[in-house]
Amino acid sequence: MANVAMLGTGLIGLFYTMSLHGKRSRDKVVVVQGRDPEKTKAFADKWGIPRSTTSLEEAVSAPAVDLVVIGLPNHLHLEAVQAAAAAGKGILCTKPLARTAAEAKEILDAVEKAGVFHGYLEDLVYTPKTMKALESVRKGAIGRVLWARSREAHPGPHSDWFWTKELSGGGAIVDLGCHTIEIGRSFVGKDVRPVEVVCWGATQVHPIEAEDSAIGIVRYASGAVAQFEVAWTFRGGMDLRDEVSGTDGTIWINHWLRTGFEMFSAPGSGGYVAEKAETESGWLFPVGDEVSALGYDAMFADMLDAFEQKRAPIETFYDGYVVNAIMDACYRSMETKRWEGVVLDDWRGATEAQSAGVHVEFDARHWLIKLERMPDGRKKLILKDKQTGAVSQRVE
Amino acid sequence: MANVAMLGTGLIGLFYTMSLHGKRSRDKVVVVQGRDPEKTKAFADKWGIPRSTTSLEEAVSAPAVDLVVIGLPNHLHLEAVQAAAAAGKGILCTKPLARTAAEAKEILDAVEKAGVFHGYLEDLVYTPKTMKALESVRKGAIGRVLWARSREAHPGPHSDWFWTKELSGGGAIVDLGCHTIEIGRSFVGKDVRPVEVVCWGATQVHPIEAEDSAIGIVRYASGAVAQFEVAWTFRGGMDLRDEVSGTDGTIWINHWLRTGFEMFSAPGSGGYVAEKAETESGWLFPVGDEVSALGYDAMFADMLDAFEQKRAPIETFYDGYVVNAIMDACYRSMETKRWEGVVLDDWRGATEAQSAGVHVEFDARHWLIKLERMPDGRKKLILKDKQTGAVSQRVE
Amino acid sequence: MANVAMLGTGLIGLFYTMSLHGKRSRDKVVVVQGRDPEKTKAFADKWGIPRSTTSLEEAVSAPAVDLVVIGLPNHLHLEAVQAAAAAGKGILCTKPLARTAAEAKEILDAVEKAGVFHGYLEDLVYTPKTMKALESVRKGAIGRVLWARSREAHPGPHSDWFWTKELSGGGAIVDLGCHTIEIGRSFVGKDVRPVEVVCWGATQVHPIEAEDSAIGIVRYASGAVAQFEVAWTFRGGMDLRDEVSGTDGTIWINHWLRTGFEMFSAPGSGGYVAEKAETESGWLFPVGDEVSALGYDAMFADMLDAFEQKRAPIETFYDGYVVNAIMDACYRSMETKRWEGVVLDDWRGATEAQSAGVHVEFDARHWLIKLERMPDGRKKLILKDKQTGAVSQRVE
Amino acid sequence: MANVAMLGTGLIGLFYTMSLHGKRSRDKVVVVQGRDPEKTKAFADKWGIPRSTTSLEEAVSAPAVDLVVIGLPNHLHLEAVQAAAAAGKGILCTKPLARTAAEAKEILDAVEKAGVFHGYLEDLVYTPKTMKALESVRKGAIGRVLWARSREAHPGPHSDWFWTKELSGGGAIVDLGCHTIEIGRSFVGKDVRPVEVVCWGATQVHPIEAEDSAIGIVRYASGAVAQFEVAWTFRGGMDLRDEVSGTDGTIWINHWLRTGFEMFSAPGSGGYVAEKAETESGWLFPVGDEVSALGYDAMFADMLDAFEQKRAPIETFYDGYVVNAIMDACYRSMETKRWEGVVLDDWRGATEAQSAGVHVEFDARHWLIKLERMPDGRKKLILKDKQTGAVSQRVE
Repeated sequence: MANVAMLGTGLIGLFYTMSLHGKRSRDKVVVVQGRDPEKTKAFADKWGIPRSTTSLEEAVSAPAVDLVVIGLPNHLHLEAVQAAAAAGKGILCTKPLARTAAEAKEILDAVEKAGVFHGYLEDLVYTPKTMKALESVRKGAIGRVLWARSREAHPGPHSDWFWTKELSGGGAIVDLGCHTIEIGRSFVGKDVRPVEVVCWGATQVHPIEAEDSAIGIVRYASGAVAQFEVAWTFRGGMDLRDEVSGTDGTIWINHWLRTGFEMFSAPGSGGYVAEKAETESGWLFPVGDEVSALGYDAMFADMLDAFEQKRAPIETFYDGYVVNAIMDACYRSMETKRWEGVVLDDWRGATEAQSAGVHVEFDARHWLIKLERMPDGRKKLILKDKQTGAVSQRVE
Repeated sequence: MANVAMLGTGLIGLFYTMSLHGKRSRDKVVVVQGRDPEKTKAFADKWGIPRSTTSLEEAVSAPAVDLVVIGLPNHLHLEAVQAAAAAGKGILCTKPLARTAAEAKEILDAVEKAGVFHGYLEDLVYTPKTMKALESVRKGAIGRVLWARSREAHPGPHSDWFWTKELSGGGAIVDLGCHTIEIGRSFVGKDVRPVEVVCWGATQVHPIEAEDSAIGIVRYASGAVAQFEVAWTFRGGMDLRDEVSGTDGTIWINHWLRTGFEMFSAPGSGGYVAEKAETESGWLFPVGDEVSALGYDAMFADMLDAFEQKRAPIETFYDGYVVNAIMDACYRSMETKRWEGVVLDDWRGATEAQSAGVHVEFDARHWLIKLERMPDGRKKLILKDKQTGAVSQRVE
Repeated sequence: MANVAMLGTGLIGLFYTMSLHGKRSRDKVVVVQGRDPEKTKAFADKWGIPRSTTSLEEAVSAPAVDLVVIGLPNHLHLEAVQAAAAAGKGILCTKPLARTAAEAKEILDAVEKAGVFHGYLEDLVYTPKTMKALESVRKGAIGRVLWARSREAHPGPHSDWFWTKELSGGGAIVDLGCHTIEIGRSFVGKDVRPVEVVCWGATQVHPIEAEDSAIGIVRYASGAVAQFEVAWTFRGGMDLRDEVSGTDGTIWINHWLRTGFEMFSAPGSGGYVAEKAETESGWLFPVGDEVSALGYDAMFADMLDAFEQKRAPIETFYDGYVVNAIMDACYRSMETKRWEGVVLDDWRGATEAQSAGVHVEFDARHWLIKLERMPDGRKKLILKDKQTGAVSQRVE
Repeated sequence: MANVAMLGTGLIGLFYTMSLHGKRSRDKVVVVQGRDPEKTKAFADKWGIPRSTTSLEEAVSAPAVDLVVIGLPNHLHLEAVQAAAAAGKGILCTKPLARTAAEAKEILDAVEKAGVFHGYLEDLVYTPKTMKALESVRKGAIGRVLWARSREAHPGPHSDWFWTKELSGGGAIVDLGCHTIEIGRSFVGKDVRPVEVVCWGATQVHPIEAEDSAIGIVRYASGAVAQFEVAWTFRGGMDLRDEVSGTDGTIWINHWLRTGFEMFSAPGSGGYVAEKAETESGWLFPVGDEVSALGYDAMFADMLDAFEQKRAPIETFYDGYVVNAIMDACYRSMETKRWEGVVLDDWRGATEAQSAGVHVEFDARHWLIKLERMPDGRKKLILKDKQTGAVSQRVE
């Protein structure tokens, strides 16, 4: 079992505590830290946490604490990590790891120098559907991965600081892109180097400086591309979907608005429907167990098992650093209006590889381009002469 | 934390143990009992259970054991409950509680006389979607419940004994009807008396004596009906759906084949897809976290919390008894080919009530039957004169 | 091309005219008849119909008319058919054919005695999805049909007369049951005799005499059952779904609320969404081409082609008569609370047949009950000894 | 009614003829032209076309012909248009209009100089769902359009010439991008100038020169972006989906694989499932009426009505030219790896406009950034000070 110091009492601290204290857990939050003493005390009381404080220092250095969970605004991650590392505690940090790759590298260096356990709380890689899909991909169910799409869009974040670029480090890319980039990267393979990026972003709706909408394409060394789409302008709830295509198959995942639970309520349900739901009557799409569907349960199980077993969790600060490097390239591409290389001074994956050919031989002389059944029942073959390159067709 | 004796090592014992030993749980199975010593030992080794035995007596009376979980074939429930009750242990019993209401009453009497904790392991009432839907219904999101449909259909059960009527007590009704009846009853309200039943059942496909397909309609004292459909003949995987209609809304739940996770795999995933999946290539519909989606996690959380807090869990042996009484009436109806009353010598819910009227007044003289928008944009009102009963329409 | 007299200017006359005058059609309505002269004239003007009248006699006997389409309330069908038959015109009549089987038989006798063409306008059998599904079933895609479910539910009909039992002949069964019964019958096979029926019906919500909700089970001579569910109490739009199970497959059809078109609109679309839609903002589920999706286009194409080719259409007055006979049995069952035989004095299909056995042989000694893959990858066989009947299992 | 000369007997000519000769149509193909005399004769016989020929000249100049429909490979469009224009016939040409914008301009000039009727056969803009969605967007149902996604992906085209770059003009962009670009443009508004494009494309799987996969982002003068995704590498059938987001709503359309028709078939349906379906057993997703679902019926209705009414149809050769200009920019972007301007020498829409601001005022001093309901039921407001730009939050 682990004794946890929770830094932060916002929505993310709430979800983390709900998951940690969830179903028959043997782990406990033993101290919670927040800016506002009253709010922090109320949070502690609600969740049965014995101690509350406004002091970061006090929280991370409490002797009863094994593990520090950082659920703070982005601009406070570095300071919190440094304090916790200095106290020799294991550290779990929320997403994004930092505002820039440079800052992420500082954070990574801090934990590696201190030799403390670290986990990157990228929950959406841990959703039940994503975990099972990643396992299928690894087993070859869809062949070689060619393309991935990860989309997260909703009407905008919960906290004021996230709308202020200096504190958050950016807009929808920093808030949502970090998730969607890491999901795409997980499907392509975390060992495969992200090579370059092209990105569009704009402030389409909100009276803010940062982008409230963006689309990016990340090209990997394997030839695969992972496209991400993020928006703080979406209407209808939270759109959280992933798609993956491979040479032999396809995966479609919908985490939120269409999960097999549909409700029409004329009077309205009189309460909370689901995170980022916009409406309370008419057709609603609740999620059964949100904390589980968002990956928190499986994430903390992996993190705490890893902590006890002294192994690395699936998501580490190094992953957070790679994600920040990709986001940096996105912001550069938005300015230069061209593809930008992903700068990774510290690359720990495979060295660059060419995409493998997968042509199918029809006979000694031809490649098979395509085999298809026509509406009238006949089969049609499209062939390519290996020598001449001429394309021909046969109907059988 | 609870120390559990697991009786049975079949599929149900496997799912129970997976859930109990799941994510960061503080509960442990400390002894497992099975018929086959080698298989039982292998089960214990796989799940880190310190002790295995073929003796029911030994398992239920082990001093380290707080709680006995019965995952045995139906014909062994009574004996196992009696042994565990004699040992003074808390008891959780799998579904159905018994083969008949009479047997269920014996089981209920045994635990109540012994004064031991008891929980009925009706997992499908505890799925994340069902739990949230039940809460919405209680809050009035769909008004007064009028109708429910619960359907469970798949290609047939896993174990030989379930195909033998003497051991199981029946066919698809006893196997699947117990779930679907209790789901319907939960939506209508467990306090509302089930009055009568009409049921069709037949052996349509399999070379067995018991019914492999059945449809039943349960009428409740509130005027609501709950229809159930069960089959061991379904093709395409496991069909697990619930629907509820009320005066003010509708709920549709799909637990299994359409949950927002879709995969096309040409080569096949090379392994296990989901419980009762029939195919391993082409379009597949995996479930992210099966143990959670089937309700095991929330069920054991409620059961073990209840055990510790010395309160009744959501599902008790009394509920199991009511379900058996409804199933008995179904079998009678199949023979007599008419509606049959549900015989409940021991009814603990509300005394019979008439269904409440909910007419909407349009003006002093008329009831409103309906208000509708036509394709050309006009609104049409259908009214009924309170005195004369004459129906008229107005277009606005 | 056909020249049509349209009797009736309500919603059904509107849909029929929209379909007949639809995309590049060569058929035309040349006279329209309605009760209200002004409304009928306006209808004629809107749809470019040269002549309008309030006289049934005048409409059906106009020399320019080839074909009379009856879109009148149920209690007027017999009179209209008799008039059109006397005029020697081809006749298409809306659903239900009549209020009772006896009345339907009179209608059938009238057209057969006059020797005129007749078609039963059961549009939902002609939807694009149902037509393709029926073809797949005929080709053996799902094996022997075991079970069908057809459901139609919405907040209630458009016209005052439909809420008055004397005029309509009943409630939701007569209005919606006629569709759902004929859909089920089409999947089972129209040559297969419907044997008996059990039916529940009640007035759950509306201040009316007739049933606003009903569930029926029709048992066929082949052993198949077709269940139907109808309601005028449904909330959320129009629920129009069919399901069919066979020994080798399954079909699920959703005609209305989930067809691949989903819209979230905060302000509302400012107009008509779809037939029986209840809401105009929030999540909406429009249907692309309603007239096509409801089967009107394919129905009139078949009817008019049949009329020109002097063959019977897919749905004739005989089919309407069979449907009325099944509905009669439903009403009897609601009173007697038991299964009631379907009385068909004039049965033109196959004589009764026993359901065929379809046991699968495993080896000379055993039937195969089931083959299944377990979560751990093993295969399990459930076998039955042909001699002793003993059930056993093998794991491979 | 129109008398049509059909040029081409491939899949597209087949679909066109099926639609033209479909349900009760008054239009007829009176001559069909193809390369292979026998195949062309067989086509004519099957569809009841009185005359077949291998001569383009003969087909377009037949006196009985009003309208020439061009269903030929891309490299033959210019020649066919010139011949038909010279003969003074109305012309409908399949998509893409040409291989490049320059060639498209020649085609456009030819018809405009000859003064003949012309329609661009972009069927996917005419699907029932797209038509209804476009109408909703025009009525303001989703507010100002911000983003659109149109995706078409399948295992590759039917005909050999499409796999040969010189004949087709390109790969998946030319084949599928033309559809998806015009769909996006239709949602943004055809009057709005497409400004610039960034595009990724690659040959990921097939042994061909052209791209078999591409993603493009088109930025419009209104600030909206329309993203398109095309692939000849998709596995699982044909993926045909559109999504649109606006300031006040969202639209999701699935045209093909999830339309409310689902079938599990163990033996397989023994025949044709749907265009580009890959499998014939297991879970299948047929489309009820493919010719209608793909837009052919509504497209020809508009085209032939327009021809008779002497008005422009919804899609004209000018639209085809704009699409070619966008595709040209895509190919340039793939080479330069940067955003490329869309070159439109002949722009007939609105002159450039700035995107309109849509900030919501909270009070005299603040803009409202966001209003949200939290899981605990409270409402949170995110505000921005109009003067200082400071972001703050209030919980109510």
